[in-house]
Amino acid sequence: MSTIVSVDVSDVRFPTSQSLDGSDAMNPDPDYSAAYLVVRTDAGDGHEGHGFVFTIGRGNDVQLAAIGAVAEHIVGREVEPLLDDMGAASAELIGDSQLRWLGPEKGVMHMAIGAVVNALWDLKAKRAGMPLWQLLARMSPEELVSLVDFRYLSDALTRDEALAILRAAEPGKAEREAQLLESGFPAYTTTPGWLGYSDEKLARLCREAMADGFTQIKLKVGADLDDDIRRFRIAREVCGPDFPIAIDANQRWDVQAAIDWVQALAEFRPHWVEEPTSPDDVLGHAAIARGIAPIPVATGEHVQNRVVFKQLMQADAISFVQIDATRVGGVNENVAILLLAAKFGLPVCPHAGGVGLCEAVQHLSMLDFVAVAGTREGRVIEFVDHLHEHFVTPTVIEGGAYRAPLTPGAGTEMLAESVRDYTWTGAHRVATAAG
Amino acid sequence: MSTIVSVDVSDVRFPTSQSLDGSDAMNPDPDYSAAYLVVRTDAGDGHEGHGFVFTIGRGNDVQLAAIGAVAEHIVGREVEPLLDDMGAASAELIGDSQLRWLGPEKGVMHMAIGAVVNALWDLKAKRAGMPLWQLLARMSPEELVSLVDFRYLSDALTRDEALAILRAAEPGKAEREAQLLESGFPAYTTTPGWLGYSDEKLARLCREAMADGFTQIKLKVGADLDDDIRRFRIAREVCGPDFPIAIDANQRWDVQAAIDWVQALAEFRPHWVEEPTSPDDVLGHAAIARGIAPIPVATGEHVQNRVVFKQLMQADAISFVQIDATRVGGVNENVAILLLAAKFGLPVCPHAGGVGLCEAVQHLSMLDFVAVAGTREGRVIEFVDHLHEHFVTPTVIEGGAYRAPLTPGAGTEMLAESVRDYTWTGAHRVATAAG
Repeated sequence: MSTIVSVDVSDVRFPTSQSLDGSDAMNPDPDYSAAYLVVRTDAGDGHEGHGFVFTIGRGNDVQLAAIGAVAEHIVGREVEPLLDDMGAASAELIGDSQLRWLGPEKGVMHMAIGAVVNALWDLKAKRAGMPLWQLLARMSPEELVSLVDFRYLSDALTRDEALAILRAAEPGKAEREAQLLESGFPAYTTTPGWLGYSDEKLARLCREAMADGFTQIKLKVGADLDDDIRRFRIAREVCGPDFPIAIDANQRWDVQAAIDWVQALAEFRPHWVEEPTSPDDVLGHAAIARGIAPIPVATGEHVQNRVVFKQLMQADAISFVQIDATRVGGVNENVAILLLAAKFGLPVCPHAGGVGLCEAVQHLSMLDFVAVAGTREGRVIEFVDHLHEHFVTPTVIEGGAYRAPLTPGAGTEMLAESVRDYTWTGAHRVATAAG
Repeated sequence: MSTIVSVDVSDVRFPTSQSLDGSDAMNPDPDYSAAYLVVRTDAGDGHEGHGFVFTIGRGNDVQLAAIGAVAEHIVGREVEPLLDDMGAASAELIGDSQLRWLGPEKGVMHMAIGAVVNALWDLKAKRAGMPLWQLLARMSPEELVSLVDFRYLSDALTRDEALAILRAAEPGKAEREAQLLESGFPAYTTTPGWLGYSDEKLARLCREAMADGFTQIKLKVGADLDDDIRRFRIAREVCGPDFPIAIDANQRWDVQAAIDWVQALAEFRPHWVEEPTSPDDVLGHAAIARGIAPIPVATGEHVQNRVVFKQLMQADAISFVQIDATRVGGVNENVAILLLAAKFGLPVCPHAGGVGLCEAVQHLSMLDFVAVAGTREGRVIEFVDHLHEHFVTPTVIEGGAYRAPLTPGAGTEMLAESVRDYTWTGAHRVATAAG
């Protein structure tokens, strides 16, 4: 038996607002940041659990305070019982009735739970000597289902249905794991499409994306329609008539505005329209989906939990499910969302970028391919070429695909010197208290 | 001109878990708490703005950290431009794109915005020499509409429709204000219905509620069906066949479980069924509403923002709109929700109790009566007889109705000695890190 002796947190912020990388219609000047934690034990095996919440700057300290409140549950606890029943561990954190009042299961407190859960998964995978995707994919259907909180899901997905989905994916798991190790998981890139870039840079980056083997790109839209038409035309000309080009409005529109704006871009045939409106607006997404059909809607990076994902699927509001590694309650809730997507027959195409989101979320798509959906057909993981150098096991992209990581863990560990060098001191802060 | 010189925060927690007051199916041991702030200026007029977020204990410090992050926007600002355009002030706080990532518009960060907005309203009302309800009710339709953020609402409520609603309520405002001052606003009481009480205490408190003139009571349900049947039967016997008795499940059920449980209580004719399932589950509430009709559904105390309220109304999921003073983005967003309710023809029956929620939310119902819905017919404000003694202007209940407060301000100011005496020191904490 060993004990969790500490959870240490760090306020890590990168000064990304000094370039325009990451600028979109709602987030003009993000400082990509991580509310970061390390779980340490007295096992003497050298293993730590690392996790984080991705934020875009101010408020990273608030997120850390929340992680601290959640982490009180695990400090001093025996390691093995926690890691042996990750369903119970997650349920305990979510079930703290006093903390629950601050959500429930949404926003700062829920992301804090997710970070702690993910750090425990990182620790568990390291102790098992496997990358997280493999650890999860090799679990039995019963073990995977035990991770899921079915509360509020049973009108769409029961435990028995989830078991049936996983059992149906059992044949071929070994073969798909071999395929994954051979050819990885397809990626698409948002690098060309940030709003702050010049037309020349946009065209050049589109050419580079195709040359690098990416099979899809994405453009940010929603700030100015004329700009969007011009930029989409450039991208379409560079990439050719059939190359998938998605667009992303980052919640910019109301329902009718979304429909009108997308119709004005329809001639360029968007592969999907991402976050057309509020992530809370299930019925709004459904109305937009009807209004722009057959152009499909995608969302998820700001979807707060499985309950909202469930409804987006029930309402035929989305065609692509964009899970995020640090928005919901961690690996466990993302397994629930993978199962919901499988039930509704929808492809999971994760949101990534930010700080470490690529490193973390690839494990979930790889689980999905090997053991849940059983296919990577029509699936892509977002890739943004930012800040990977700060991670111990940075993503490896080859031929437009994520190579399956082999290093044990969840991919969530930053280099100690990066944590040290970018710990927040106020130095790169430009905004003042007066906004 | 004067300047906001400081925003001071206090971590105020009352040891309510030592009794079973406030226990329900999801919250067995709440310590009613307030993440409290005071806005001070150099105007020399003696006026301060007080606001808070109600929490139930652990995490109150996280909520304070969020209030601190939001308050940076107003410290050092000139008072008059902020208070003269409260629509802009609210929009600025909600529009901080870096903080927005931590919501958006939900959970800890959104409640922090609400607390700061409410403190500014308290200051504005004190400077105007009016109770908040009167200050708001005497605004012109144009002024009231200027408070509202219509983003994500326009598919259900446009600015022009809101203006029309308010203009339709203009005739009779003075008369309704006089009626309000004369006879107050109807209240209902949850005091008899907490799960922790004995049958004898339940029966006694039901009798007392009727003797005190309350025209409705509410019982907590959802922990044990046999208990609920027994308790509802006692309440029905004490109160008689026609007295309105609502029930409140505090999010305990999945969709089918809610339908089944409520059907098992249908013989006692619940006046409404409150929070049958996740506050995020619009489609679930709608399915429950269809499944238990004609028994009506109520919800709102955990509804995170106007976007979810909008959908609950669009989906015919609720029959009663239970706004809360400190869950959403403050007075401004609650005005939006009052307008949505008026558009959909639904009565607003606020959630209250906790710490100071009665003191704060009464102003919004009184605004609703005088200037928005134009009626108090079928409306009741929850009343729980806890902790009022800690407020400078405690609610006054007479004949089962809230008397309209006359003291300038928003009702959100606690006694300085209460803040001092109940500032958190860890003393009443019983729960350990191991939960």
